[in-house]
Amino acid sequence: MIASDGIPDLKEIVTYFQSLQQSICIGLETKDGKSTFRSDNWERKEGGGGDTRIIESGRIIEKGGVNFSHVHGTLPQKIANRLSLLEGLQFHATGTSIVIHPLHPLIPVIHMNVRYFQIENGVWWFGGGMDLTPAYIIPADARYFHTQLKSVCDKLGDSIYPLFKKQCDEYFFLPHRNETRGIGGLFFDFLKPKGVFESSEIIWQFVQSVGNAFLPVYLELISRHEHSSYTEAQKEFQLWRRGRYVEFNLLYDKGTSFGLETGGRTESILMSLPPQVEWKYNFQPATGSPEANTMEWLKPMDWVSC
Amino acid sequence: MIASDGIPDLKEIVTYFQSLQQSICIGLETKDGKSTFRSDNWERKEGGGGDTRIIESGRIIEKGGVNFSHVHGTLPQKIANRLSLLEGLQFHATGTSIVIHPLHPLIPVIHMNVRYFQIENGVWWFGGGMDLTPAYIIPADARYFHTQLKSVCDKLGDSIYPLFKKQCDEYFFLPHRNETRGIGGLFFDFLKPKGVFESSEIIWQFVQSVGNAFLPVYLELISRHEHSSYTEAQKEFQLWRRGRYVEFNLLYDKGTSFGLETGGRTESILMSLPPQVEWKYNFQPATGSPEANTMEWLKPMDWVSC
Repeated sequence: MIASDGIPDLKEIVTYFQSLQQSICIGLETKDGKSTFRSDNWERKEGGGGDTRIIESGRIIEKGGVNFSHVHGTLPQKIANRLSLLEGLQFHATGTSIVIHPLHPLIPVIHMNVRYFQIENGVWWFGGGMDLTPAYIIPADARYFHTQLKSVCDKLGDSIYPLFKKQCDEYFFLPHRNETRGIGGLFFDFLKPKGVFESSEIIWQFVQSVGNAFLPVYLELISRHEHSSYTEAQKEFQLWRRGRYVEFNLLYDKGTSFGLETGGRTESILMSLPPQVEWKYNFQPATGSPEANTMEWLKPMDWVSC
Repeated sequence: MIASDGIPDLKEIVTYFQSLQQSICIGLETKDGKSTFRSDNWERKEGGGGDTRIIESGRIIEKGGVNFSHVHGTLPQKIANRLSLLEGLQFHATGTSIVIHPLHPLIPVIHMNVRYFQIENGVWWFGGGMDLTPAYIIPADARYFHTQLKSVCDKLGDSIYPLFKKQCDEYFFLPHRNETRGIGGLFFDFLKPKGVFESSEIIWQFVQSVGNAFLPVYLELISRHEHSSYTEAQKEFQLWRRGRYVEFNLLYDKGTSFGLETGGRTESILMSLPPQVEWKYNFQPATGSPEANTMEWLKPMDWVSC
């Protein structure tokens, strides 16, 4: 896919990101069996646009978004400043971004994002990752999730998983709670040829293998719990845990604040927020309860060998 | 109350802020009739502390906080930087801060804050305000609220209400929605002797009259709606409108972000968040509905003469 100058082929990337969106929507709809995605196509005044696909009130998915966008034009001043780039350059940014809030309190929230940024001066990079935010942390699920992500990374040697796992723990962290958002996963940004990522082609294969891992991994996590019953107290704990998700996304998530600041489409950015949320003053789970265990595990943990 | 050097008397201010907290709690409890405030006394490691009073699951109040705090010690570096002050100075900060989320969708959310900041180098100021965030904007209530606030301000001439009203509209604004949070009210900060506020004593009288206005004004607004019935659809709209409240407080409110950054007590700061909230993708009220009217009125409006 790589042009002779080593710059990735934008058209191929866009085609993949769109087909990833499509295959994930079909896979999730099939599993859900009750609700389907509706598609909101939107245009960006300055160039490009996107396709926001939303599912609500499903059997499995209480609210979820699988978004594709490809925007281009003149680099907005705020983005140029943030990236220490000259203003006025032409850019392309494209990606597929997913957040799924399940109805069942034992099925975790999942977030996945793969993205590509290209500037006319020849600068480009990939970014992305995948992470899990369980209401209840279930160690077997956490081990399964991290083992799958590790095997994606290990194709490039054993240095990648620990690095991207650490970056994920550091990124999805709520300093005011001294808690991670969930059990982490992978996070990478500004991925350019360097070290084991020795070429554009290797990076591009890696990004695709992260994207392709999403559906089988999440379907497995759904299957583990979809038929088990749950209590009202478990549902209530899930609504309370979702409050932390909102706090992270609105207080700290750079994608959210940056997107809103630079005139991104508000409803597509904030589709990540949960459908129903509760805040209770100073709630503390009972000592030794599964809820207390979860709170105890909201820190960087070695889930692969737990 | 003023010392001969014109610096307000900290002890008198603290005494008033505490008695204001007490009288408001009693007044709200009496009106609620079902739930009562519980008190969480906390200490700040570096000096001072507070009394966070929370009421939940009441007849009128679904969740509310009436907080007093008085913290002191060495000015934290982040605050010194933000205020362009030297580090290492001794300071006192004290205030009473209120957020009430009512159960009934026709009773508005109210927020009130009065505060005083004093530094050992002789610098001091007052800040505060009061504003209303109705789920449904009811013009007669908006007119009543603003008329009451205007009469508090007009004792100092007719220039104060328009200024503090404008500051409030500008502060409680969500740029990503192009909406005000609610119908505004008063907002003031860094209030020092200047113009019609010709002395510390006049400022102090004004701050007290804002604080004293809270209880009668909010009790009147409660009385107007407490016995009227409401539909499930109205309750749902309230939960959706609360999403905007969360978005403002976590994305833009300087008190919130600053408090969390400088190591304030998380649960006391985030007591402002509503008990139950909903986010729906791209919800749009039906044209001509009361919900659509509310959305139409979320902009600076002349409520006194509407």
